[in-house]
Amino acid sequence: MNELKESGFDAAKTVENGNKYLLGNGYLGYRGTLDEFGASECVGLNIAGKYDGVKGKWRETVNAFNPFYMAAYAGGIALDAREKNVAFHEVALDIFSGLFKRKTVFDVNGTSVTLKCERFVNMASKSNLCSRVIITADKDIRLNIKAGVDTDIWELNGPHFKDVKTKISGDTITASGTTQELGYRISVECKYSQRIENFSGGFGYINADIKKGEKFVLDRVAFVLFGEENADGESYDDKLKSHLKEWERLWSISRVYFKDDKRAQFALDYSIYHLLILAPKGEYSIAARGLSGQTYKGAVFWDTEIFMLPFFLNTLPDCAKNLIKYRINTLPEAKKKAQSYGYGGAFYAWESQDGYDACSDFNVTDVFTHRPVRTYFKDKQIHISADVAYAILKYYEHTGDDELMLAGGLETVLECAEFARTYSYYNHVKDRYELLDVIGPDEYHERVNNNAYTNYIFYNITKRGVELYEKFKKAYPESAVKKLKEWVEKLYLPKPDKNGVIEQFDGYFKLEDVEVEEVRSRLKHPNEYWGGSGGVATATRVIKQADVIMLFNLYPGLFSKEVQKANYEFYLPYTEHGSSLSHCAYALTACRIGKTDGAYKAFMDSAEIDLKGGGKQWAGEIYIGGTHPAASGGAWMTAVYGFGCNKEKK
Amino acid sequence: MNELKESGFDAAKTVENGNKYLLGNGYLGYRGTLDEFGASECVGLNIAGKYDGVKGKWRETVNAFNPFYMAAYAGGIALDAREKNVAFHEVALDIFSGLFKRKTVFDVNGTSVTLKCERFVNMASKSNLCSRVIITADKDIRLNIKAGVDTDIWELNGPHFKDVKTKISGDTITASGTTQELGYRISVECKYSQRIENFSGGFGYINADIKKGEKFVLDRVAFVLFGEENADGESYDDKLKSHLKEWERLWSISRVYFKDDKRAQFALDYSIYHLLILAPKGEYSIAARGLSGQTYKGAVFWDTEIFMLPFFLNTLPDCAKNLIKYRINTLPEAKKKAQSYGYGGAFYAWESQDGYDACSDFNVTDVFTHRPVRTYFKDKQIHISADVAYAILKYYEHTGDDELMLAGGLETVLECAEFARTYSYYNHVKDRYELLDVIGPDEYHERVNNNAYTNYIFYNITKRGVELYEKFKKAYPESAVKKLKEWVEKLYLPKPDKNGVIEQFDGYFKLEDVEVEEVRSRLKHPNEYWGGSGGVATATRVIKQADVIMLFNLYPGLFSKEVQKANYEFYLPYTEHGSSLSHCAYALTACRIGKTDGAYKAFMDSAEIDLKGGGKQWAGEIYIGGTHPAASGGAWMTAVYGFGCNKEKK
Repeated sequence: MNELKESGFDAAKTVENGNKYLLGNGYLGYRGTLDEFGASECVGLNIAGKYDGVKGKWRETVNAFNPFYMAAYAGGIALDAREKNVAFHEVALDIFSGLFKRKTVFDVNGTSVTLKCERFVNMASKSNLCSRVIITADKDIRLNIKAGVDTDIWELNGPHFKDVKTKISGDTITASGTTQELGYRISVECKYSQRIENFSGGFGYINADIKKGEKFVLDRVAFVLFGEENADGESYDDKLKSHLKEWERLWSISRVYFKDDKRAQFALDYSIYHLLILAPKGEYSIAARGLSGQTYKGAVFWDTEIFMLPFFLNTLPDCAKNLIKYRINTLPEAKKKAQSYGYGGAFYAWESQDGYDACSDFNVTDVFTHRPVRTYFKDKQIHISADVAYAILKYYEHTGDDELMLAGGLETVLECAEFARTYSYYNHVKDRYELLDVIGPDEYHERVNNNAYTNYIFYNITKRGVELYEKFKKAYPESAVKKLKEWVEKLYLPKPDKNGVIEQFDGYFKLEDVEVEEVRSRLKHPNEYWGGSGGVATATRVIKQADVIMLFNLYPGLFSKEVQKANYEFYLPYTEHGSSLSHCAYALTACRIGKTDGAYKAFMDSAEIDLKGGGKQWAGEIYIGGTHPAASGGAWMTAVYGFGCNKEKK
Repeated sequence: MNELKESGFDAAKTVENGNKYLLGNGYLGYRGTLDEFGASECVGLNIAGKYDGVKGKWRETVNAFNPFYMAAYAGGIALDAREKNVAFHEVALDIFSGLFKRKTVFDVNGTSVTLKCERFVNMASKSNLCSRVIITADKDIRLNIKAGVDTDIWELNGPHFKDVKTKISGDTITASGTTQELGYRISVECKYSQRIENFSGGFGYINADIKKGEKFVLDRVAFVLFGEENADGESYDDKLKSHLKEWERLWSISRVYFKDDKRAQFALDYSIYHLLILAPKGEYSIAARGLSGQTYKGAVFWDTEIFMLPFFLNTLPDCAKNLIKYRINTLPEAKKKAQSYGYGGAFYAWESQDGYDACSDFNVTDVFTHRPVRTYFKDKQIHISADVAYAILKYYEHTGDDELMLAGGLETVLECAEFARTYSYYNHVKDRYELLDVIGPDEYHERVNNNAYTNYIFYNITKRGVELYEKFKKAYPESAVKKLKEWVEKLYLPKPDKNGVIEQFDGYFKLEDVEVEEVRSRLKHPNEYWGGSGGVATATRVIKQADVIMLFNLYPGLFSKEVQKANYEFYLPYTEHGSSLSHCAYALTACRIGKTDGAYKAFMDSAEIDLKGGGKQWAGEIYIGGTHPAASGGAWMTAVYGFGCNKEKK
């Protein structure tokens, strides 16, 4: 199966399909919406890593102006999928060629009019995207088309553009605007293959009479210009050719095969598609919702390092290097963040926008009071620094890239360790260092002590960092390394209890012993937040996502299979999977302990999340919808590291 | 002015007046309700320190059966203050004699009938309370009276009694019941001066024809029997005589005089009244809402040690000793609590019921979701142990009672210090011990680090405890004292900043800088809780009550007047006074820094709180009404330690 395909139009699926049929080239993302759609249907042309903040609102990536707006009329009747005269409607995404296709047949007072569209975000380019519209009819008919660059765009926390200007020059329409905060001038240029008349406000008109059986073709070749690249004179077909060639190359490197399981094969192919459309084209990184929009502020989370990096390490190491360099480049901001809290070393942004921590102190809005809730993700989710260090070490393990290690890699690892050292307190009664007042991956339990995931990963990255220092003897003061060495030997690591279970954090076992469904039944509002002080999960053992289990995936050899099994069985019933990172974490561990049924189910939950339009859409009153590239990465890891590397059977 | 008096009946004031006109003798409290009232009007005969817990509900003190119920009818018409035929109604409390008085005149179809009642809880006894009812009329009339021991009682978390039995024997009605949890058999006996007929279910009937101008008198002499004391044959007048004598003695010891300020004089007299009716008659302590009911579970808080003890130390040292012995006696429970959290030493109950910590993990109910909110008062309000130690040291300073110090007093102080030592963490970067994850007096900010009040008081009690150990060389292992000595030298004490202000806890200065009225304006429900993660105050500088300021009152010599003034001026605008402990804390500091106007106002706010029926009635959905003896104690401290001892003028 090459294509994701869907017949019939359902207005309720507009937002979901925008994500599901997303196009992208690692720099630009174009949502799977229809030509006749606008801001209210969440049309989005998202740009990676270009941020803007409007006063009093969250800073986020900007959506560029939409070059592909078109409202077509045949015989005076709108060719609009939402209208009643639709005889047939279908959208499709060819994941092997990165092509979005749309076909709608209209009954225009007895004339059958067919509107076809093909669209791609050019994988061989950074700033190019193209659209081809073909209209045919079974009788002669008059076409009137309004088309142009739509500057009325979907924004969560906008408006991001001021001084918006539109112009036409020959067959090219340009809209440009300046971002509010940093004053970037962004232009969207779109070259038309048909003559535009009566241009005004970004839009013009194309009028044509088509004969029965004749094709009306409108090609549009667009560029999002930021100073990086210039529009060129290539045609739609030229662009398509280079685009398809690049896709062929990417798949030849990255495809993974299932034997005799078409559903799993397509789910994995679809996951890989979503990773490939995010492969960065420079030293920037990948947002948690990829290029599907502004959700989560377009910020970079630990998702990239822990869930997506392995795919790139194994397929596109240059992209992996970009991801790593993004973190090395933002080391100064991480050091500043640590300083601002009174610590040493590097405390990476929980929600990184070029190193700036976009995480709000109030990340959730209470659904009952509509009031922001103080959350501690930014202040206390310190494992982000360990995750960054882990990723660098993983990159080094794969590549042996001494050069990068000396050019900031090792320094970053050791600064992350140093942060943990200065964050830690010494328990003088028990003679050990502890990491207090943190949040682990399970965000439903804020401000806990000695989160196992956090302590173990800091322990391991510090040990390895210090070892590598012995090799390089460079990139860090020796006296600081000495302190780290002494510290790490006394860092507390929570051990498995007599049943083999590692307590997620101090006191977790004392929490109310109820499972997910019981806690879910206590909800009084479908979108209410499960964590925080008043959340349904807070005082219970119910966790948002894999936490101890995730640790096993980072260090599969650290604990025996028995311990991994005991924890898997213990924690699974308490896990809500409220994060898309959760299923694949269980899937990977399930593979190692021979729970193949559980692994397969969790793999499919992870790989199909965007196919099913799943995942949580709301955290309190905050919209968090979009694609889930970490789940895609997790599906890939499960296939390769899990199914591919574990031969044990239950 | 001897009497608190109020004319006219207002049903809306029933609960408030129950508190305002409260009687008590340090063991029993009888609310200022009317003879014809029952459970729904919150009639209450509260017993100090007798607890009962019903499954799934909060454990609390029990209310005994009401011996003084009476429904009188004249000429077939109810003599009930709530009826329309009331011509005059008045209640009064004579605070110098501990007498509650009530007079109601009814128009019974043209006959004027007067019902008078006098009631007291015998201060000269432990278990006795008496009532006298006098009915007169201006024409001959028939009286029918239903009276008896009402077993349908007001309970917040009941029912506490099972196997309830009532009987009559001669002129004595008895109701008895067994408490659910510990199986105490509690009997309420009431001897009638009039013959009872047709007894059933605790009630009987008295019928009489009274002539114009004649008095119908019903005396009732009641006992709450618990095995401590037996009913005797004394009459109402006998009991009244000993009661008045004891009140005379108490006032001769404890009265404090204002010069030329009748309002302040009465407010202070009234405050002292409320302390005297709580003076314990044995080795038990005083509940936060005194004997006014079951609010706050009848549990003992730091209120007693820090706000009430000074009055008793200066007037009734034997009562002070009872309060201290209560804490020494409950040291084993405090050690158990510390152990249960993994610490050494003694962690006193935040809400002590004979040492058992009645504090719930969910002390507040959210008004929007009606769901319990996880609060950390029990786990994190560690200053309670310092408060207990402080009280013992204060007692010793006043009495020089070496014997009590050797009989558990010093051991308790050192165990409290040892608890803090084991609770603390060593900050290896800054070379100091810190008290992390605590709640100070200001409960709106939970789980903070290095609360100034907490750190300073632990520092001081430890220093003094170690000094006294040097004197006695007994009551504690020398090696443990050595550890305490080393520890306390490195305990972190937050110092005044360049403006002289001591930060209430780490990071307090970084909170949103808004004052009380702004925060109040953000409320969306009048009873919503200001603290917890979603509260309006949580992320702001607004505090529930004096915190740093309270520290100055415990150790007036610790900081210069300039520092005290700087903090007073800084914190006052942020202080909501959501606790009745707050005004007097500011009043005391105001006296020392010469802010006499502020001191006087805060004194009056504190002294008149129960006169005005003030204080918060609700914390979320939990009823917290009742009397405020800590405010009474605070008013006394302000008068004596403040107005009495500070001559400086502004």
